[in-house]
Amino acid sequence: MKKLFNSQETMVDDMLDGFVSAYPQVQRGARDPRVIVRAKNKKDADKKVMLLIGNGSGHEPIAMGFVGQGLLDANVVGDVFAAPSADLILDGITEVSGEAGTILLISQHSGDMINGRAATMLAEDDGIKVVALPMYDDISAAPPERRHRRRGAPGTMFIYKILGAAAEEGRSLEALVALGQEVRERTVTLAAAVTPGVSPLTGKPMFSLPDDEIFLGMGVHGEPGIGRAKVGPVSGLVDQMVEKLLADRPLSSGAKACVIINGMGGTTQMELLTIWNETRVKLASKGISAIAPMIGSYVTTQEMGGFSISLLEPTDDMLACWCAPSDTPHFPAIDCAYEDLNS
Amino acid sequence: MKKLFNSQETMVDDMLDGFVSAYPQVQRGARDPRVIVRAKNKKDADKKVMLLIGNGSGHEPIAMGFVGQGLLDANVVGDVFAAPSADLILDGITEVSGEAGTILLISQHSGDMINGRAATMLAEDDGIKVVALPMYDDISAAPPERRHRRRGAPGTMFIYKILGAAAEEGRSLEALVALGQEVRERTVTLAAAVTPGVSPLTGKPMFSLPDDEIFLGMGVHGEPGIGRAKVGPVSGLVDQMVEKLLADRPLSSGAKACVIINGMGGTTQMELLTIWNETRVKLASKGISAIAPMIGSYVTTQEMGGFSISLLEPTDDMLACWCAPSDTPHFPAIDCAYEDLNS
Repeated sequence: MKKLFNSQETMVDDMLDGFVSAYPQVQRGARDPRVIVRAKNKKDADKKVMLLIGNGSGHEPIAMGFVGQGLLDANVVGDVFAAPSADLILDGITEVSGEAGTILLISQHSGDMINGRAATMLAEDDGIKVVALPMYDDISAAPPERRHRRRGAPGTMFIYKILGAAAEEGRSLEALVALGQEVRERTVTLAAAVTPGVSPLTGKPMFSLPDDEIFLGMGVHGEPGIGRAKVGPVSGLVDQMVEKLLADRPLSSGAKACVIINGMGGTTQMELLTIWNETRVKLASKGISAIAPMIGSYVTTQEMGGFSISLLEPTDDMLACWCAPSDTPHFPAIDCAYEDLNS
Repeated sequence: MKKLFNSQETMVDDMLDGFVSAYPQVQRGARDPRVIVRAKNKKDADKKVMLLIGNGSGHEPIAMGFVGQGLLDANVVGDVFAAPSADLILDGITEVSGEAGTILLISQHSGDMINGRAATMLAEDDGIKVVALPMYDDISAAPPERRHRRRGAPGTMFIYKILGAAAEEGRSLEALVALGQEVRERTVTLAAAVTPGVSPLTGKPMFSLPDDEIFLGMGVHGEPGIGRAKVGPVSGLVDQMVEKLLADRPLSSGAKACVIINGMGGTTQMELLTIWNETRVKLASKGISAIAPMIGSYVTTQEMGGFSISLLEPTDDMLACWCAPSDTPHFPAIDCAYEDLNS
């Protein structure tokens, strides 16, 4: 296998050694080195609600790259493509939790949900105030009337960032949970996969696909989607995807939509910028302003080729939180000045 | 070909439409839309020396992603893997040049050198004060005694950033050229290529390589390198590469080295962080402190798999400029606090 690591046994910890020695915003947790925490933990001094998430590794920079001021307080790092254990998540919750309470964000996938729910129950037994907030946005995984069964996809980054900024302001646990639920209600995502990545566990491509076909709706681990499309001008593919997103959650003329164009790893910046441009033009043709975009490979599946389009119809409060400054290793600056540029 | 674009004729301009509509720091030039300039051009108000570069596209985010405050004033964007014409570079020089003069950075490749030199001569004929500064750092392209014949590789980003910060401070044209030459003298880079990218021009892989081999020293367009290595634990590969870098430009125990670990496109964050970690450990074993790292896929060749290691032994002035704040679409925050973390 042509992956650049030392061994399957050490790959995650070698990565984490590199990570904490590169970025001053983060360090390993005191209770368990697989928990990445802010270098300056603020839990008691500021009575801040703490935010954390557990996830399998292999999708970097998410989520460890988003630990820092104005975003996450901790990330619990599982093995490659495997949810962290309930015990490990409990270590993360225990390390960061303070007086104001904690929110465990969970990107809805079965292992993450089972272990995350178990960890919150164990933490409550220890007297910790913690709420689990499942995140889901992938419209290909369930119809609108069963949207609570959808899986987490890159649109979950709206929740990370908006709650991160709001928590930094000192809002209450109850207010933050309600805000997160409202962002979730307003977010839709659809993905298209083009070429497989190679799993570092098996050394094999994660799926196969004819040379002229694209999968629509594939999940971040190669979960099945809703159909196939032929390779052709990307404007046609984006048109089709935006139509599906708007059919799922209609936006009226005059609306604004924050946009995430996420690359899966092997898709170039040239392609992602073109996809953003087509998304913007397509939305504009319906009177919808695409604003404050986040464009890049943030939720990856190794070097898989493909992308997703996520839309959020923001309230003014959500928009301010989305564009608020943060200081983490990998979350980009997002500027609401974009709104003026494109209107 | 499984690339996500509309047509070969429109791919660069579609990308640029997306780019300028996503990032408020940049806009298209008034003289030619293939020139990307700062949205707030500062040339006369501040008597600032202007910095620009021309390069072929297909390597994003470099160089257009580095236009903005504290970095480049303009980027002249050629077709995919093709240097921009002398006329186009002249348009870029003419648009940005003010009283304090201009530096045209040139990453040393034959087309870029020929067209860049021609453009500076044409600009001089028009009465513009402009200096061409060739950049080269790839130790595999020529021996130390002929280092001026080396090609540009990702270590050129040290020059971009350090001159960008110094120009923003208002330093003179002469001082900046001397500083750039001194950074160049102190920079060495070596690359390793693992898997080919697909050219958007031909739809074909850009080279072929046995399943268990790695090319050492390949250039960013697939130019030949200095040998092959077998796939194995990455620590052995990094050891070998660091030894070659230090043989080329020795660093004594107690020295500091700024490090760039650049991914070529298809190499994951997990791999790049592991490579950084091995580089740091290897340097530490020789008493050298690895500091202020830049880690990510900034100079890409489509989805090629591979990476380079660049080292700069900085003066205090260079280090301060390397870590100075900038505001561009893609240059990351680099923090000299890393020095303390690793010492």
